Amino acid sequence: MQEHITLKSLAQKLGLSVSSVSKALRDSHEISPKTKARVLAMARRLNYIPNPYASSLRRKRSKTIAVVIPEVDDNFFSLAIKGIEAVAQQKEYHVLIYLTHESFEKEQAILQEFKSGRVDGILMSVSMETTTDAHIEALCQQGMPVIMFDRTLHQQNLAKITTDDFDSTYKATCHLLACGCKKIAFLSISPNLSIGKDRAAGYRQAMTDQSNSLAPAMVVECSNLPAQQHKVITKLLSQHDPPDGIIAAGEKLSIMAYQVCHELHISIPDTVKILGFFNLDIAPLLSPPLTTITQSCYAMGITAANALFKALEKPHFDPKAESIIIPSELIVRASTATDKL
Amino acid sequence: MQEHITLKSLAQKLGLSVSSVSKALRDSHEISPKTKARVLAMARRLNYIPNPYASSLRRKRSKTIAVVIPEVDDNFFSLAIKGIEAVAQQKEYHVLIYLTHESFEKEQAILQEFKSGRVDGILMSVSMETTTDAHIEALCQQGMPVIMFDRTLHQQNLAKITTDDFDSTYKATCHLLACGCKKIAFLSISPNLSIGKDRAAGYRQAMTDQSNSLAPAMVVECSNLPAQQHKVITKLLSQHDPPDGIIAAGEKLSIMAYQVCHELHISIPDTVKILGFFNLDIAPLLSPPLTTITQSCYAMGITAANALFKALEKPHFDPKAESIIIPSELIVRASTATDKL
Repeated sequence: MQEHITLKSLAQKLGLSVSSVSKALRDSHEISPKTKARVLAMARRLNYIPNPYASSLRRKRSKTIAVVIPEVDDNFFSLAIKGIEAVAQQKEYHVLIYLTHESFEKEQAILQEFKSGRVDGILMSVSMETTTDAHIEALCQQGMPVIMFDRTLHQQNLAKITTDDFDSTYKATCHLLACGCKKIAFLSISPNLSIGKDRAAGYRQAMTDQSNSLAPAMVVECSNLPAQQHKVITKLLSQHDPPDGIIAAGEKLSIMAYQVCHELHISIPDTVKILGFFNLDIAPLLSPPLTTITQSCYAMGITAANALFKALEKPHFDPKAESIIIPSELIVRASTATDKL
Repeated sequence: MQEHITLKSLAQKLGLSVSSVSKALRDSHEISPKTKARVLAMARRLNYIPNPYASSLRRKRSKTIAVVIPEVDDNFFSLAIKGIEAVAQQKEYHVLIYLTHESFEKEQAILQEFKSGRVDGILMSVSMETTTDAHIEALCQQGMPVIMFDRTLHQQNLAKITTDDFDSTYKATCHLLACGCKKIAFLSISPNLSIGKDRAAGYRQAMTDQSNSLAPAMVVECSNLPAQQHKVITKLLSQHDPPDGIIAAGEKLSIMAYQVCHELHISIPDTVKILGFFNLDIAPLLSPPLTTITQSCYAMGITAANALFKALEKPHFDPKAESIIIPSELIVRASTATDKL
């Protein structure tokens, strides 16, 4: 094994104090140019690499940010991470990824760890179980910058990077009504979540404003478990008077709605038209191609990370001024066509 | 803001030396049970949380592992991360994610950072440009445990967690031949990659062993850029005597092959049968449902992480003994059907 060069051994070899060598490496004005040159030459020759944890202690900076998210095997979050990582790499920061698996308890435990100074700032999207923000507030009280993205909590005074959840389902509902749907069901992700509430609210509002039929709004809670989602959607589509339009509030729900239609031999779009929140490039290749609300996931990651670095760099950061709503796009395809394609 | 309690301020409040308090917190035999109890009570009362970087310096352990991968917006890698994270969370370790974006230069720069002791061990899958292992070897020389998964380098004496790349394309090629294909093209990801080489070799071997036709093996290099992939596949399928069978060696290539067939109105499976490496649950919902080689990505993440923790915990770790090949599965669907469905 190669000898590991520490600040101490470097100082010994130079016949200088650890403090002088440290100052020379940080280009301090207390050290003469001649000594600096000698220290740098020796550091290079011995391939000295500063210990990041020792540097963190001295500088009070870990050069590390945390991303706390519910899942990673979801295209929305993996694209957001890609955006966050692109910004962090440019800023020469390290990215720690933590998954809550939709557990509030796990989310609290993860945030508790950050009190120790392992990270300089946090980007987070809350779990389905999270309804209070005391655990986030405790970190903010310590002066830790926290940026919320996608799934936020309404009551917080934090920078929030979100999509236009209300507007996008409002637009989606109007689209299905314009396609002739008389009975539209809304497949909801957790009603705890800000995005779940906002998406359902946009749907309800459009039903009230735009629907001339007497059919009431129909919000179907689908849980987070695939087996439960399958059961609920199968029951919905097997009932006596099934819906002729479905809005799925998430990627996995969109896929499950398709799967159940395939299983029950229900024709899309003839018998039921389907529209879903969906970010995979593969939407046009589905049978039939899926009409989607497509979010700018990568842009959301970039924007959230940029807001966090602003908070890290600026002493007087105004969270409200950094809150941004990134519009999503309704892309119409065959799953909501009015004529058979 | 809440007062931040350090080891030093805790010691001051107790009227003890920093060293004694540190020893008491680590349950050292040098400190009396009575003093230990007093220190613990005060630490609890003041909500003292040890600084992880200071602890790292003392213990020479960062409780952090790094995952170095080419991309995260690929279902294979996001599922592998999910598996790695599950093991790390159980072991109370933190997970740093680094993306090389298929650049050898970036991969070298990332690994160079680890020399400083930021992480205790590394899980990695090499970039498309990586053909030498001096940068990995340099870390191993320092005693850093490194586990390779999926994309490895053949020459290394490291633990490798891989899938049966050769066998799976051998099986896939035999399947297409049995379906009556006379001219099978293999869409290759980078020929630099171990998985690219092994997958192409399995295809070539099956063509030699099993094909009675005179059509030679046809390996089509597709690059990593979507625009280039689109061009190459469009040219392939537009030629005078196009292939009647395609094996796509990756998820994005499978999707691109479908897209080009849709654009050119080429019927799958009547005109061309398609089979691809593909891990998304959505395969049965594609038009038509895709025959896939499906890998155990999550299991691969779990297995790779378990091997790394073995290396961290065992002083005499035998890398060869930990190398595991996780079989993938051929799932036959309509895209290779012999009768029109």
